[in-house]
Amino acid sequence: MADLQDLATRLGDRLVTDPETIAAHAHDSSRVGPEGTPLALVVARSTEDVAAALSWANAHGVPVSVRGAGTGLAGGANAYDGGLIVSLAQLTEVLELDTANRTARVQAGVITAELDALARTEGLFFPPDPASARTSTVGGNIATNAGGLRCVAHGVTSDSVAALVVVLADGRVMRTGSRTRKNVVGYDLTSLFVGSEGTLGVVTEATVRLKPVPPGSPRTFRASFDSLEAAGDAVTAIVNSAAQPEVLELMDALSVEIIESFKPSGLTVPAGAMLVGQTVGLDALAIAEEITAICRAQGATDTELSESDSLLEARRLSNPALNARGLKIGCDVGVPVAALAEVFRGIGEISGRHGKRVSTVAHAGDGNLHCTVEAPDTEAGIAEADAVIDDITRLAISLGGTISGEHGIGSVKRHELAWQLDEAALDVQRAIKAALDPRGILTPDRAI
Amino acid sequence: MADLQDLATRLGDRLVTDPETIAAHAHDSSRVGPEGTPLALVVARSTEDVAAALSWANAHGVPVSVRGAGTGLAGGANAYDGGLIVSLAQLTEVLELDTANRTARVQAGVITAELDALARTEGLFFPPDPASARTSTVGGNIATNAGGLRCVAHGVTSDSVAALVVVLADGRVMRTGSRTRKNVVGYDLTSLFVGSEGTLGVVTEATVRLKPVPPGSPRTFRASFDSLEAAGDAVTAIVNSAAQPEVLELMDALSVEIIESFKPSGLTVPAGAMLVGQTVGLDALAIAEEITAICRAQGATDTELSESDSLLEARRLSNPALNARGLKIGCDVGVPVAALAEVFRGIGEISGRHGKRVSTVAHAGDGNLHCTVEAPDTEAGIAEADAVIDDITRLAISLGGTISGEHGIGSVKRHELAWQLDEAALDVQRAIKAALDPRGILTPDRAI
Ligand SMILES: Cc1cc2nc3c(=O)[nH]c(=O)nc-3n(C[C@H](O)[C@H](O)[C@H](O)COP(=O)(O)OP(=O)(O)OC[C@H]3O[C@@H](n4cnc5c(N)ncnc54)[C@H](O)[C@@H]3O)c2cc1C
Ligand SMILES: Cc1cc2nc3c(=O)[nH]c(=O)nc-3n(C[C@H](O)[C@H](O)[C@H](O)COP(=O)(O)OP(=O)(O)OC[C@H]3O[C@@H](n4cnc5c(N)ncnc54)[C@H](O)[C@@H]3O)c2cc1C
Repeated sequence: MADLQDLATRLGDRLVTDPETIAAHAHDSSRVGPEGTPLALVVARSTEDVAAALSWANAHGVPVSVRGAGTGLAGGANAYDGGLIVSLAQLTEVLELDTANRTARVQAGVITAELDALARTEGLFFPPDPASARTSTVGGNIATNAGGLRCVAHGVTSDSVAALVVVLADGRVMRTGSRTRKNVVGYDLTSLFVGSEGTLGVVTEATVRLKPVPPGSPRTFRASFDSLEAAGDAVTAIVNSAAQPEVLELMDALSVEIIESFKPSGLTVPAGAMLVGQTVGLDALAIAEEITAICRAQGATDTELSESDSLLEARRLSNPALNARGLKIGCDVGVPVAALAEVFRGIGEISGRHGKRVSTVAHAGDGNLHCTVEAPDTEAGIAEADAVIDDITRLAISLGGTISGEHGIGSVKRHELAWQLDEAALDVQRAIKAALDPRGILTPDRAI
Repeated sequence: MADLQDLATRLGDRLVTDPETIAAHAHDSSRVGPEGTPLALVVARSTEDVAAALSWANAHGVPVSVRGAGTGLAGGANAYDGGLIVSLAQLTEVLELDTANRTARVQAGVITAELDALARTEGLFFPPDPASARTSTVGGNIATNAGGLRCVAHGVTSDSVAALVVVLADGRVMRTGSRTRKNVVGYDLTSLFVGSEGTLGVVTEATVRLKPVPPGSPRTFRASFDSLEAAGDAVTAIVNSAAQPEVLELMDALSVEIIESFKPSGLTVPAGAMLVGQTVGLDALAIAEEITAICRAQGATDTELSESDSLLEARRLSNPALNARGLKIGCDVGVPVAALAEVFRGIGEISGRHGKRVSTVAHAGDGNLHCTVEAPDTEAGIAEADAVIDDITRLAISLGGTISGEHGIGSVKRHELAWQLDEAALDVQRAIKAALDPRGILTPDRAI
């Protein structure tokens, strides 16, 4: 404790030891809780604060968990027993908005939607838009390489990150990347740190790329299908057509039912599944019409065009609606888009075999699925749900897919890593971790 | 030599010791030559051949240089004294063209333009298009994270790489990435290996992303300016307008002169500089008209629209034209696009101060410049030219730029690394290299 006193002297009121405040920062939004009782919380107000915290933790071999807004779904920000929590939530300054180069330099704790709103005052926008955008931080998005609804058109978070300021495990500060559009100077450390889930360093500042807001008004569309497979085939057809949506999401019948009962918006529960999406640009209406025409050709029973956001808003409610039922998202698998119908067929079989209802929403245009198993929140119920999720995950991998499209591994999916990665890849990840964090203090035993 | 016999036994005729064949594979297209006399050349015909070569080299501490087509401009593929050359040039198979998922799985030695041509038979194309596309390999493009003419619209090579098969320094084979559009499973090893210039592993196979060929016919445009600065400002204005080109290149007066005298195509040498570019899509003509209108508003003295490729073809000849004069590309700096006019002004001052003529071509839409200094090919001439290049490079960095936009570091630009990267970033790169290649056999002492 004398040692913690050292850190307290350096950090002043940014070092918090009040148990209630610590507890409020000790877990993310996943179903797994913190591992024991953390020592203290650092509410960083500068890169130097983070550097002080890490160099102290490194010197004393204290495990560190890193936290943005705690909306993560993989247990990545959960605290460690006897550990330090480093929170970036108070680093909320937008340091520079460079409209001529379409970049913004922001501190890690800036809220995703607030950066987007600020950019929009200049006719620009920040592409990453996880459904959690109103609470998640840009630093958290970077650390998880977050996806969202607009990825089908604008890519994932890593596609929008140009440069970083990172505090390394031993407290040294490093700059990566460049504001230029092209840069091939040594290894691409920016991409290495994006998605590294707090295990290689703490991002305190980022230079992100913005895009111009498309002209005209966005349009939304809906198409209902009698079967999930037909909806899957429609997605493949849309993605391979000239009619490119900005958003292309799927909700199966059970999901729509769950969302409607959480907050009714008048959506009719389809027999199979519903696609909802958005088009942008001066041709938004024409593109949306083309997409619904493709859907009808693929067997949609009913389609709708709209100027309001309410269809997408319903989709964004899926996570809270599931939580309200005591259900937490079960998986985050991805498959090549052309395999969507096949994966849906397989999920139906798995669900039948286990005798468990599965609800599925998907960032369909990217082939990224979130399946949730209906099971009681008891030990036995969770074990049964996990068995279903395991089967779905192995199915996705067998179709050339991935165990995580956007939520990351954290502690929740760590046992699945070897299903997807070969020995050499696992070794290389561990070697990189050991090289950059030799004492293993940063988010130990997670993500890799 | 008994040891080399071991390898010869394993590789048969894929191990070449004929001095002339070795010499033909010992250097790339940069101005620096190989370092001494290599031991042997491995012309790999499979991933296993590469694995055999590396595990042998690793066991014996023999330095390895890796070679695609040898069109590199940074000295990266040059052979080592007593070293092994591993050539991927015979790994030329396209293993799979998956049109529904818009990906191709190719061996590393496939020629860039040949992959592109094959994709086009299915209405798709391969976005990376370095001016060397007709000879460079996909593996070389990946290892250098090559740019090209279309980056302003389609990004760099890393934006088109989904997954890799890599042979590590000790001969183990590793798979990275996924065919899915989103994948956040452990560290982004794919991006780490893209641009690593043969120092971390040998890419033997890649899954790359293709894009649909835009409908309609492409249009090309030209705009001539009395000053380089005005052309630079026009580029900034175009990039920040709604009229997005697929290609946006710049040639200064001296470059046009050099290209025209190499292979006349009727281009009039401008007083300052010339922008040439291409637009695509059903609105190609309207977009090209909008771009030339922006150029005239920014002071263009003369503009032209065309349906032929000859304007771009002239730009592609810049490298051969310079070589024919005994001039090798001097730099590959990048600046944020809004700093183009300023960097041109600075280059003019530097040129005047040194009393040396500088010719500049640029992937202008990306802010990526290739400046060449007119100097005799003597020791003194090269030293003088290097001094000019050093000043231009420092200028680019001072404007928030980079020392290399697309050619990479190799051995040629290694002394500049510390101008751009901080100590911590240099250390981290070295730590990663040491972790993945502990004996330091793979392309040692280059790139980082
Ligand atoms: C309702 C809801 C909807 C969601 N929708 C989506 C979605 O559509 N797409 C999607 O991808 N995700 C989604 N998520 C998951 C989550 O919002 C994202 O992972 C988000 O990027 C996490 O941001 P955060 O600031 O909350 O990070 P946290 O939860 O605090 O942390 C997440 C991980 O990043 C690390 N980390 C955080 N900040 C930093 C930093 N500055 N430096 C280094 N490491 C750091 C943590 O250690 C942890 O491993 C959703 C979550 C909820 C609750
Ligand atoms: C006329 C001309 C025009 C050019 N135009 C452009 C341009 O517009 N944009 C651009 O970016 N570049 C350009 N270049 C540079 C060069 O063509 C690119 O760097 C290209 O990507 C190199 O490919 P290559 O197959 O020739 O690789 P090589 O020259 O053989 O090797 C390049 C580097 O990559 C490594 N390497 C090669 N293959 C592998 C592999 N399979 N695994 C691991 N490492 C490997 C080598 O060790 C070396 O470090 C041009 C060059 C010329 C001569």
